[in-house]
Amino acid sequence: MSIKDVISLPRNEDGIAAVIGILKQQFGERFQTGEAFRAQHSHTTTYLTPQLPDGVAFVETADEVKAIVKVCAEHKVPMIGFGAGTSLEAHVNAPAGGISVDFTRMNRVLEVNAEDLDCTVEPGITREDLNTYLRDTGLFFPIDPGANATIGGMTSTRASGTNAVRYGTMKDNVLSLKVVTANGEEIRTASRARKSSAGYDLTRLFVGAEGTLGLITSVTLKLQGIPAAISGGVCTFPSLKAACDTVIMTIQMGIPVARIELLNGLQMRAINAYSNLSYPEEPTLFLEFHGTDETVKLQADQFREIAAEFGAGAFHYTANTEERNRLWKARHNAYWAGRALLPEVNGGLSTDVCVPISRLADCVAETEEDIAETGFLAPIVGHAGDGNFHVLLLFDEKKEGELARAEAFMARLNARALAMGGTCTGEHGVGQGKMSFVEAELGGALDLMRQIKTGLDPDNIFNPGKIFRLSKVGD
Amino acid sequence: MSIKDVISLPRNEDGIAAVIGILKQQFGERFQTGEAFRAQHSHTTTYLTPQLPDGVAFVETADEVKAIVKVCAEHKVPMIGFGAGTSLEAHVNAPAGGISVDFTRMNRVLEVNAEDLDCTVEPGITREDLNTYLRDTGLFFPIDPGANATIGGMTSTRASGTNAVRYGTMKDNVLSLKVVTANGEEIRTASRARKSSAGYDLTRLFVGAEGTLGLITSVTLKLQGIPAAISGGVCTFPSLKAACDTVIMTIQMGIPVARIELLNGLQMRAINAYSNLSYPEEPTLFLEFHGTDETVKLQADQFREIAAEFGAGAFHYTANTEERNRLWKARHNAYWAGRALLPEVNGGLSTDVCVPISRLADCVAETEEDIAETGFLAPIVGHAGDGNFHVLLLFDEKKEGELARAEAFMARLNARALAMGGTCTGEHGVGQGKMSFVEAELGGALDLMRQIKTGLDPDNIFNPGKIFRLSKVGD
Repeated sequence: MSIKDVISLPRNEDGIAAVIGILKQQFGERFQTGEAFRAQHSHTTTYLTPQLPDGVAFVETADEVKAIVKVCAEHKVPMIGFGAGTSLEAHVNAPAGGISVDFTRMNRVLEVNAEDLDCTVEPGITREDLNTYLRDTGLFFPIDPGANATIGGMTSTRASGTNAVRYGTMKDNVLSLKVVTANGEEIRTASRARKSSAGYDLTRLFVGAEGTLGLITSVTLKLQGIPAAISGGVCTFPSLKAACDTVIMTIQMGIPVARIELLNGLQMRAINAYSNLSYPEEPTLFLEFHGTDETVKLQADQFREIAAEFGAGAFHYTANTEERNRLWKARHNAYWAGRALLPEVNGGLSTDVCVPISRLADCVAETEEDIAETGFLAPIVGHAGDGNFHVLLLFDEKKEGELARAEAFMARLNARALAMGGTCTGEHGVGQGKMSFVEAELGGALDLMRQIKTGLDPDNIFNPGKIFRLSKVGD
Repeated sequence: MSIKDVISLPRNEDGIAAVIGILKQQFGERFQTGEAFRAQHSHTTTYLTPQLPDGVAFVETADEVKAIVKVCAEHKVPMIGFGAGTSLEAHVNAPAGGISVDFTRMNRVLEVNAEDLDCTVEPGITREDLNTYLRDTGLFFPIDPGANATIGGMTSTRASGTNAVRYGTMKDNVLSLKVVTANGEEIRTASRARKSSAGYDLTRLFVGAEGTLGLITSVTLKLQGIPAAISGGVCTFPSLKAACDTVIMTIQMGIPVARIELLNGLQMRAINAYSNLSYPEEPTLFLEFHGTDETVKLQADQFREIAAEFGAGAFHYTANTEERNRLWKARHNAYWAGRALLPEVNGGLSTDVCVPISRLADCVAETEEDIAETGFLAPIVGHAGDGNFHVLLLFDEKKEGELARAEAFMARLNARALAMGGTCTGEHGVGQGKMSFVEAELGGALDLMRQIKTGLDPDNIFNPGKIFRLSKVGD
């Protein structure tokens, strides 16, 4: 068993054959069983071994989703929702086979309510396409996980990213969902009102459920006004601790930074090399401020003072859009820059943990030491305002023992985060990759999740084998 | 059947007798079965008829909660959590009898992590006691539902209140919970990290579950830095629409108002009479700004400009603490001021709905007309930034037909809010009073709630008969 291996679940061959026959008839060309399609729908940016679905249905309407769920429910065949394929923990693998439900053609904007700062979209729209659509309204959707993911996928993994520190995560920005549940009916989890105390929070239950409780057919999102002014900055620190202390004080003072990102020395080296820049290769914060011309300057001045107190080097501030875009492009390329540190391995393992921010400096510093001891190349970048950071572990699986060392490192990283009161994943989700860690983190609470899953999806047809095992013995 | 009536559920007499015997032994003086205690624990600010529990246990530790749940689970006897008794929809009634679990002695602050802006408390602490405790830390807990409720109760009803527009509701401010579930074990829903994608959002499932899924034993809350500067203001408008349009524009411009409260003419009349003030008796906004000396002034200036555009009268702004406290004291007394409009009825029905803010003016105006036609005295006050408003319906139940007219009015109010894309309760919760409305609002989604309830609490021992009926036929 290596860190890349995944568990297979029993397949219902007769059911799968029956469903394939029916969906071929119902969907024609929009149902594909060729290997290229199936491989593409299990291939994401994960390090885990792909498990192909048996067919891929390209849905165009909620009624088609209902039809698929009814057929699959009748024959007890799994369904796995698919968006942009950017997930990191093998969320779209098909350990028991089944049907990949591709939502990329359900990508319409159904409604924009500018006065209410909300919109309703189909799940297959990407966040970039949504923001392009919204531009003329003066509004934008703030959540930015880096990848150009679909809104449905982002909802299902409770995505967040660089500006969660200001705007929250998907849990804070989804107002309501429509979902097709195990009986093939579509329900609406909530109204469009900004808040409600009308019963259980079903919206939040489906946000982050990784497609294990139903298939999302529409998402109502909060929007934000595009800030009148945006400015950015970069600041180098003598130590991780100085950078993290600056972050803590910035948050504590209530400065509403839109982004405050921590990059360690190695990550800065990677960025310099990849983007032909010459930043000091020391712990660094990248910042962004949203507001008016007056308030962004005010925020930046307050930040500068705090940073200086903690011994920061010069704070390079810019209100120039082009310069700011260059800065943030470098930050957004951190993942690719990291991979380019070791181009011959063609990949790496991107993982995330999240700790209370008072422990961020310790957690990152200990992880850096661990990396140094094991000899890996592994840059670190973090959403420091949330205490969330990523390690891109570059390893060469062809080298003897490398997979085992990577596995041991992952175990230590997660144990360290949990011991500091943190979580094994701040934003990537559990999928198949984090199952053992979530068990260590939540213990008995996983039994409640199992009870919910069994209550809502008794035949385990929605994305089986993700987040938790249903029973100790297998599935 | 009148608007005050509640449904009784079958009682498990043998089980109740057994549990009473055991708890008397276990708790001694801290278990009470006298009628005064039982009556007090079903008596809240609700208009609904009380249903007394069979005994009241004053718990002091999580272990005692676990012991009670184990005993009640064994004998299939209901338990109802009790805090400050300020709920409005009969959340603490005991329609099948059972044990009221009084948390007021579990009121310790367990931990404050100033750097992380969080704290962990026992559920029985009130929000005012918590804020008194926190004062020296420079931090505060912002959610203010008006009443000095307990944190456990506020969590269970997903409370919010005047400054939710800036700081969110309980769903946004609870980081993690400990809960004793139906098997008598205590689980922890999440870590203390600011965000997580580690499985289903159990925290949000218990926030707003009204005690129907378990008993909360500790709550980890987000805290905020006490603003360096707070200022306030009052502004009168020529119409509800002008006031609401001002609110919409204020929110859309991203002005981070801490409070923006709408009071209609009758509510202003009530406040003037009650607090000996002389505000114009017209639609009015009460505001509060949090920030630094510079930013609160900036916010107020921006607000003044917007209000002027919509034809507002003078905007009375104050940075003086005493004056601001007087202003907000008047607003906080709105409920008592409203009741004093008709002192002979000694009460009234306080209800709430919430609509998308673009519909707030229409919804309030139509409701005012409805009130005028029916001849009720019923002041309106709203958390305008969230589209949430309250009607205090004053009726004299001794008058022939008054209860039926109140019931018909309530049905129209809720239908109106739902037709405008709203919810039947923004912050009061469902309890017993809003069951039929939540059914109209959510339809099939209620079945999911039933499945969750049955999965997590198969014997229906946690606060039965609240939010929804488990089956169409009875319980």
